Amino acid sequence: MTDIIYEQPLNEKIRSSLRLEYLAEQLTYNFNHDHRHACFFPLFSLWELTERCDYRNDVLKDIDRQLALFNKWCLLPETDHQQASLLIEQLNTARADLANCPRLGQELKQDRFLMAIRQRFSMPGASCNFDLPQLHFWLAKPWSERQHHYQQWCEHFQPLLNAIKLLLKLVRETSTFEPTTAQGGFHQGDSSQPLSLIRVALPQEQNCYPTISGNRNRFAIHFVNFERHKHTDQMIDFKLAACR
Amino acid sequence: MTDIIYEQPLNEKIRSSLRLEYLAEQLTYNFNHDHRHACFFPLFSLWELTERCDYRNDVLKDIDRQLALFNKWCLLPETDHQQASLLIEQLNTARADLANCPRLGQELKQDRFLMAIRQRFSMPGASCNFDLPQLHFWLAKPWSERQHHYQQWCEHFQPLLNAIKLLLKLVRETSTFEPTTAQGGFHQGDSSQPLSLIRVALPQEQNCYPTISGNRNRFAIHFVNFERHKHTDQMIDFKLAACR
Repeated sequence: MTDIIYEQPLNEKIRSSLRLEYLAEQLTYNFNHDHRHACFFPLFSLWELTERCDYRNDVLKDIDRQLALFNKWCLLPETDHQQASLLIEQLNTARADLANCPRLGQELKQDRFLMAIRQRFSMPGASCNFDLPQLHFWLAKPWSERQHHYQQWCEHFQPLLNAIKLLLKLVRETSTFEPTTAQGGFHQGDSSQPLSLIRVALPQEQNCYPTISGNRNRFAIHFVNFERHKHTDQMIDFKLAACR
Repeated sequence: MTDIIYEQPLNEKIRSSLRLEYLAEQLTYNFNHDHRHACFFPLFSLWELTERCDYRNDVLKDIDRQLALFNKWCLLPETDHQQASLLIEQLNTARADLANCPRLGQELKQDRFLMAIRQRFSMPGASCNFDLPQLHFWLAKPWSERQHHYQQWCEHFQPLLNAIKLLLKLVRETSTFEPTTAQGGFHQGDSSQPLSLIRVALPQEQNCYPTISGNRNRFAIHFVNFERHKHTDQMIDFKLAACR
């Protein structure tokens, strides 16, 4: 029985971060699998999101907040100093990489091949052979060559994505999964400390998925039967982590 | 040296057909390769296009036109009657399947899973784990099971796609590739009979792709260098088929 992990952000910052991390996972998946022209979807989504919002400053502030926290912890005698130093080093590297990189996606705008196909990709079925003969040419190149191009394009977003992944890792590590039971397919919880992320681990065999809602102090989980698209009234055993 | 084939439609009917065929090829590719959530892009594009335009009546009329043509040919003594009968049978089958199928994509609207994810798929990065926990659940299913679902969804569009493929095959067979040379990267041609499709076969090694324009009587081909994004002034050897 392998668990599927579901996550629900409880604030806008984590919501954006999860969205970017999700796209980052798709890019990474495309590094190793030839998905032909479908590899452009996460790349263009990421490009569009980073154009719309300036994530950089928020992420830099967040890194600074974490660094201040770790530096404070380092003063306590019970802290694992080796572990803390390692994290401080990772945060500093991520900070420097992000602070020094050019405006995200800006350099890619010089790439006439990418710009031409990006324009047509959001329209259904509009990236045909005759719409984009250059894409047709590119797709006929060996996968190793296309893979190299793709990695170079994605490279531009890595400073942001690496920082996001590190920050999300720290958020996830604020809690561990605890066995929990939802009576009648429903569970609610609260916390005196502000929460930012709810995580639910559930075996596929339960044949249901959670819908989670909440804010920094309270959250509710409804389990929905996948086939019937309806709230289940079964007792559901799952694992819960409420992260700060 | 493998040739890459580029095609340019010269009328709206062939343009739509090539668009649908292109999406059909992507569906078929997804039948045999697990592209995870990327498999939904061509499915939703096809769904949207068939909602926007009523292709069915045009395609039925086109099949009838071809049937009338083949029936006339059958009266000529020099016709390959076995070949003609086979094509007439294929056209009749495609016609019956298309005429009898329910409105394309209509039945899929009952599928609450598909409808929920379709709504979010056109927004960049908006089909996250927390946006669509049901998609996250589905993606954790074994590939064989997802493959089966996917084939069932695509099945709804097959009567249209099969007819389109057959009609395009007949158009492509109206001509054969002839060796041609473009002096200074440019070629133009004309025809007294109305043309509908220009096909260019070009080895990848030429490192350029054609941009083709034209109408039913005339067409022009410019060869563009892929790296320099510029018209090449080289002499280009290629193969050309002008289909009616």
